[in-house]
This record gives sequence, C-alpha cells and structure tokens, in this order.
Amino acid sequence: MSKYQHIREAAYYANMELPKLNLVIFTFGNVSAANRDLGVFAIKPSGVPYAELTPAKMVIVDFDGNVIEGDLRPSSDTKTHAVLYKHWDIGGICHTHSTYATSWAQAQRDIPIYGTTHADHKTVDVPCAQPMDDEMIKGGYEYQTGFQIMNCLSERKLDHREVEMVLVGNHAPFTWGKSADKAVYNSAVLESIAQMAYLTEQINPDCARLKESLIKKHYERKHGPDSYYGQ
Amino acid sequence: MSKYQHIREAAYYANMELPKLNLVIFTFGNVSAANRDLGVFAIKPSGVPYAELTPAKMVIVDFDGNVIEGDLRPSSDTKTHAVLYKHWDIGGICHTHSTYATSWAQAQRDIPIYGTTHADHKTVDVPCAQPMDDEMIKGGYEYQTGFQIMNCLSERKLDHREVEMVLVGNHAPFTWGKSADKAVYNSAVLESIAQMAYLTEQINPDCARLKESLIKKHYERKHGPDSYYGQ
Amino acid sequence: MSKYQHIREAAYYANMELPKLNLVIFTFGNVSAANRDLGVFAIKPSGVPYAELTPAKMVIVDFDGNVIEGDLRPSSDTKTHAVLYKHWDIGGICHTHSTYATSWAQAQRDIPIYGTTHADHKTVDVPCAQPMDDEMIKGGYEYQTGFQIMNCLSERKLDHREVEMVLVGNHAPFTWGKSADKAVYNSAVLESIAQMAYLTEQINPDCARLKESLIKKHYERKHGPDSYYGQ
Amino acid sequence: MSKYQHIREAAYYANMELPKLNLVIFTFGNVSAANRDLGVFAIKPSGVPYAELTPAKMVIVDFDGNVIEGDLRPSSDTKTHAVLYKHWDIGGICHTHSTYATSWAQAQRDIPIYGTTHADHKTVDVPCAQPMDDEMIKGGYEYQTGFQIMNCLSERKLDHREVEMVLVGNHAPFTWGKSADKAVYNSAVLESIAQMAYLTEQINPDCARLKESLIKKHYERKHGPDSYYGQ
Repeated sequence: MSKYQHIREAAYYANMELPKLNLVIFTFGNVSAANRDLGVFAIKPSGVPYAELTPAKMVIVDFDGNVIEGDLRPSSDTKTHAVLYKHWDIGGICHTHSTYATSWAQAQRDIPIYGTTHADHKTVDVPCAQPMDDEMIKGGYEYQTGFQIMNCLSERKLDHREVEMVLVGNHAPFTWGKSADKAVYNSAVLESIAQMAYLTEQINPDCARLKESLIKKHYERKHGPDSYYGQ
Repeated sequence: MSKYQHIREAAYYANMELPKLNLVIFTFGNVSAANRDLGVFAIKPSGVPYAELTPAKMVIVDFDGNVIEGDLRPSSDTKTHAVLYKHWDIGGICHTHSTYATSWAQAQRDIPIYGTTHADHKTVDVPCAQPMDDEMIKGGYEYQTGFQIMNCLSERKLDHREVEMVLVGNHAPFTWGKSADKAVYNSAVLESIAQMAYLTEQINPDCARLKESLIKKHYERKHGPDSYYGQ
Repeated sequence: MSKYQHIREAAYYANMELPKLNLVIFTFGNVSAANRDLGVFAIKPSGVPYAELTPAKMVIVDFDGNVIEGDLRPSSDTKTHAVLYKHWDIGGICHTHSTYATSWAQAQRDIPIYGTTHADHKTVDVPCAQPMDDEMIKGGYEYQTGFQIMNCLSERKLDHREVEMVLVGNHAPFTWGKSADKAVYNSAVLESIAQMAYLTEQINPDCARLKESLIKKHYERKHGPDSYYGQ
Repeated sequence: MSKYQHIREAAYYANMELPKLNLVIFTFGNVSAANRDLGVFAIKPSGVPYAELTPAKMVIVDFDGNVIEGDLRPSSDTKTHAVLYKHWDIGGICHTHSTYATSWAQAQRDIPIYGTTHADHKTVDVPCAQPMDDEMIKGGYEYQTGFQIMNCLSERKLDHREVEMVLVGNHAPFTWGKSADKAVYNSAVLESIAQMAYLTEQINPDCARLKESLIKKHYERKHGPDSYYGQ
C-alpha cells in the first residue's frame, strides 16, 4: 500500500462531504489532507466533478507546492494550501464558495459574534482579510493568498489554533484544522454562522454583539481546560 | 426489558427527527423524554453524531441532573432540561440552533404574532429571555439557563402549558410539551413562524400584529373547549 | 367501486404533492377534489399526517359542508371549500401555509406583478383579502372565510376563472382550478411568484410593475384564443 | 440511427439537469442543443413535464424556427433560440426562471461583479436587457426577444463568446455556450452569482465592485492563454 494511501482517502472522503453539506456546486471548492511527517498533502485535482473523484485521483504535493505523485493537475488553489501547511502546524484545509460566507467576503466585512453558536467555536469575529494589493496579485496569486491569510491573522494577533477560519475579501472562505474532516466541519459551521449573522442584522439592525462573559463561558464549555462537551 | 426502555426509544426517535426536519447540523441540538413517575429523563449523549445514535446510547438522568444509567456523558445542556422537568409538569424538551429562531434570539427580539400559523399554536408573541447577567453565568451556566427560561415566563405571566417555546437571548430556542415528539413538533413550528415573521417585516416594515379576535378564534379552533381540529 | 372513488383518489394524490413541493410541514394544508355532478367533494381528514393518508381516508362532503361518507372528521377548513364549490364552477381547491405566500398575507399586501412568470398565469396583482371584521369571525369562521374570498374578488371585479389564487390577510393563500391537480399547481406557482416578488423589491426598492403590453402578451401566449403554449 | 440522435440526446440530458439543479419547477425552462453542420437544433417540447421527457420527444428545428422533425410542438421560446443560433456560433442555449436571476431581471438591474466567483466566469457585470418596446412586442415576441438579447450585448460592446449569459428585463435569464451542457452550467453559475450579489448588498449596502486587477487575474486563471484551471 502506498505511503500516501491514508491522506488520499482522508482528502477524498472530506472532499465528498462538500456537496452533501451543500457547500459547493460543480467543481467549486477543494479540501486537502496533510501527512506532516512526510511533508506532503493530498488535494483534489483541478476541475474534476465530485462524482468522478476517487482516492487514486487525489494529487500528492509537497509544502512548497511541487507535485510529488499523481497524474492529474492539482487544484488551482494548491499553492495557498502549501503556504499554510508550511507555516502552520495543521492537518487539513478546506476552501469553498459557500453562499453566505462568500457573501460576507464579497461585502468585505468581518462576521460579528452575535450568539453562542459562534462562541461555541471561537471567541472573536470571523476575520475578513482585505483584498490583495496589486503588487501581490502579480507576484503569484495563489501563493500570495496564503500570505494574505497569515498576515490577516497576525495583524489581529489571532492564533490559527484558536481561529480556524477566515474570509478572503472579495473572494471566499478558507478553513483549516487538525484534520481534513475538521476543516470541512469548520466550513459548514462558518456557513451556518454567516447565515444567522446576516439574518440577525436584518431582524434587528441595532443588534448588539455577544457580551464577553457569555463568549468566554461558551468557548470554555467546548475548548477550555474544564470542557465538558463531547465524550 | 429495562424500565427505561420506553423513554430511551422516545428520546432516540425524537432526536432523529431533528436532522430530518433540517433543524440541526452535526451534533447541534438535543431532545429528552421524561418518565415523571420514575422521576428521570432520557437525553442525547454529548457530541455524538446523529447517525451513530441508538436508544441504548441515550443517558438516563434524574431531575437534579445526576446520571442514573448510561456509559456516555449526557448532553452539555442536561442541567437546563433537569431544572425544567423539576419545576414543570412536562414530558419532553427540545433544544436546537435552528436558523431563523436562533437569529431572532441573537437579535434579542420577541417574535410578534403576525398571522394564524402563529395563532394556531399560541396567543402571544414568542418570548425572548434577556441574556443572563454575569452573576448567573458564573453560578452554573446550564442550571441557570433553566431558571432564566422559567423567570422569563413568570415575569410575563405566561403559563408553560400554553406557551411551549422560548428564545434564550443571544443563544437559541428551547421548546417543550407533553412528550418528546410534541417538543420537536414545537421546534419545527417555531422555526416556520420565525422565518415567516422575518419575511413579513421585510415585505411590510409597517405590518400590524394579528388582531385579538382572530388570535382567539384560531387558538380555540385547535385548543379551546370546543376545538374541532384533528381526530 | 364506490361512486366517490375517483375524487377520493384525485384528492389523495393532490394532497400528497404538497409535502413533495415543500408547500407544507406536518399536517398543515389541505386539498379537495369535487364531483360537480354529484354535488360533493373529497377532502383531507383533519390533523392526519401525510404519511398516513390513503384514498379511503378522504372525507366526502356536500356543498353545504355536510359529511356524506367517511369515518374521520374532515379538515377544519372544510366549510371554506364548501362555500367556494357552491358558488363557483371549480373542480379543486388547495390551501397551504407556504412560506412566502403566507408572509405576503401576513404583511397584508397584494403581490405586485413584476415579471413574466407572474404574467404567464394572470394579468393582475395577486389580491390580498382584508382581515375579516369581528362580526364575521363570530358568525362561523371558516364559512365566512369563503365569503371573504369571494367578496375580495368581486370588489375588484376579478373573475375566479382567470384569477385562481388569493391571499387571505393575516392568514394564508387559497388557490383553485378545474381540478385538484391544477389547484396544487397554482399553489406552487404562487409560492414561486411570492418569493421572487419579495426578492425583486429587496434588490430594487424602486422597481416598476410589468408594463401592460407585456402582461397581455404573456398571458395570451398561454391562455388567449391563439395560445401556443403546451401540446 | 437518425442523424439527429446526438443532439436529441444532448438536449434531453441537458434539460433533465434543470430540475436536479433546482433551476425550474413544473415545465418552466428549456434547453436546446445545435448541430451547426446540419443547421438544426433539438429543443424541449412545450409544456411537457420533465418526468415524461425522452430523447425521442425532443423537436428538431432549423435556424429559421421551422420544425424539421418531431410530433410535438416545440417550446414556446423556440424562435428566441433560432435567432441566437442563426447569428452566433454557439452550440447550446438554456432558458430558466430560476429564483434569484429572475428576481434581478424583474428588478431591471445588471448584476454587479462583487467577487471572484463572478470573475471566474466573466469580467463584466451580468447585463440586463431593457424591456422590449411595444412595437417589438407586436412584431413576433419570441423572435424579437432574440434580437433584444443580441442588441443588449452589442450596445455594450460585449462578445457573446466571453459573456455567455444575459437577463431579459422583467422576464428571466438566457445563457448559452459551446454545448447544451455548458449552457446549463452557465445557468447554475448565474443563479449562484445572483444569490450572492443580492446577499452582498444586504450585508453591506455600500459594498464595492471587485477591482480590475482581481477581475483580470481570476478570469485569466480559467480562460486566459496561460490558464491553469482544469485538466
């Protein structure tokens, strides 16, 4: 069995979740799964419909973006994935153009934390990275998207282990996590948060952000040292 | 057969309705079913995906929140359920983060009664409990959520047998009823009412509440002494 | 074979379309099919879930609202159906609480004719009947709802053969047609029109109604003496 | 085998995608597939439900709108298709009344380019053709709709090979492409773009269009001489 079989399967099954969760249509979106010991990740091939995907069609790429194994061309967003794997200790990345999260990205707004659904997953607004400046666009677009994401978090002093999602302004969301499955989970949670934040502002244009004591309480229920969520 | 088998199955089947009714994603949401003679309820285990649930995995808990039987940790919202069972004569409770009801909760607004779909189920606006004060948050959060719900109804002089649903401000809805099935039914009705009230205000920002004579008529069709709905 | 078998089946199959078309949840909504020669109609029993319906469970009622055959209690809206059958030469009636049409009814607004999807089915705004006055509510609510619908059309000089749908203010839509199937079709078309009219006003608050020359052209394509739609 | 078998099947399968992609209800919408060597196209018959369609039921029509082969009456929009095939070198056309694209058409607004999902498919706003003047309506409505579409593109100096979609004001979208499949794909992409542009404006009424450098970059990723999307 190939030493890459595990991440091929992890990437395959995670990609197949995207249409089931209504996060993509056609070939939009891509998920990757990393083996950090081997310094590689498996990613969806570019432009191949989900119905035709198999584990064998996943492309193996190293953290500099070089194809290591695979007959197909990798996702056009591969270099963004590579940059994030190279600099962050993460196991999976997911990129979609899901309806509500993408609309917030197009509106170039952070998603305010309005409730406990949001606070169950992070303690801050979902950050929206400003659109890339023209110099960066010329200098390897997908490569620079990775740095755009990292810069957005570092400028705001956010830790990628605590905030596992970002909106790329005028573009769409990227999420990540310990595994490809967790990255996909984060994309679905983000889409739900994005829809509810939109509706909350429509229902009450003067609505207030969640207060700090509740933010802290909910996040710690799931993630603090004394967390008591899950088994 | 275990004396708890009946409520294990009631809780199991009621929980399984939540994803079918599009009221939850992943492990969000939980339903419980009580046996008031035995003074216990069966509730969903915490963080277990719906596809992996079985009646045997439901956790049996008493009305003080102590686990009586079951290998898994109960839902993180268990103490809220326990408080409500202890003080109210009800048979089932349902908690979801359904999209529209949660958005009204985040907007911290009661849902106005705009039509007969609402009046078929209750005669008042759906109450939204104000977010908990910081003292309550520190003092056992889920436990206090139960009191927050009860206080909201008593302050407004509402009877929990007539108003079987509440929004917890900045959080999400809780519903209840004679059985777990009825509690789930109420969650689905609430979600539908919440969506239509949102749209009604968008279509006509000056829309008026339903007039009292129609509220009374519709509620009595289904619930009055001369009700003529159903078999 | 019972002389009512045909309308029992027509009503059954038409009712079963409602959940498939996402026009109802639970037991909301009801469809009837008339045999005008026999002066009766078959209608859904009250409060019975769609999954448990059969043709045999449909209730046969005459045009004065008397049950002629059937073990179950008919829909609580039966008298509204009876009044319309008695006064209008129609073969089917459908009542739902579909999301967008009901929201316009709650907003107490006619649905303006904004495009050709609307004009393909009628040449005027979808009328919204004003909520019933208190005297009518006391005098047999469902019976009066029938007259409320008829009055709405006659006040506006609309012909029920050309305008097969109405919103009952603060309540929900009723549609009708030559058959139960056509009544259900009209409910689905109305829901689509209602959603698009809502979105049209959100996208352009100053949007204009469709001009008369286009209204006339589209309606005549489908319904005029030289219609050329369909086989 | 008939020389038309290929386009009959292409048109059949492309039409069957419309309900699966939630772009139509009932018999709304139609797709055609052309054989430019033979100067004909296959199109959906008028008013036939999707469930009853077969390749044999597709109607063969020439580029002047004359029926060449087939027992059924072709789509009422056939002459619009004929005009576009006659003047443009394209292989497929799709017409739907999809919810969001139709709402923009009813609002008589171009869909602004707000993000990269849009830019991946074209570099300009989706054009909305002004409603037809009364003289054109009288002079063969569907025939004139073809010219209305062509005039809209030529007035704006747009090339139909680069902009494969248009909104017909007060009516609905038309899309086209090298094949019937590509035309359907474009309709689904347009619906997604239309929904996200609507939401973007709701979330941020002052939102800005995508800047030119990003428009150019994204379009060239998929369509430029050095494109690197797909296999």
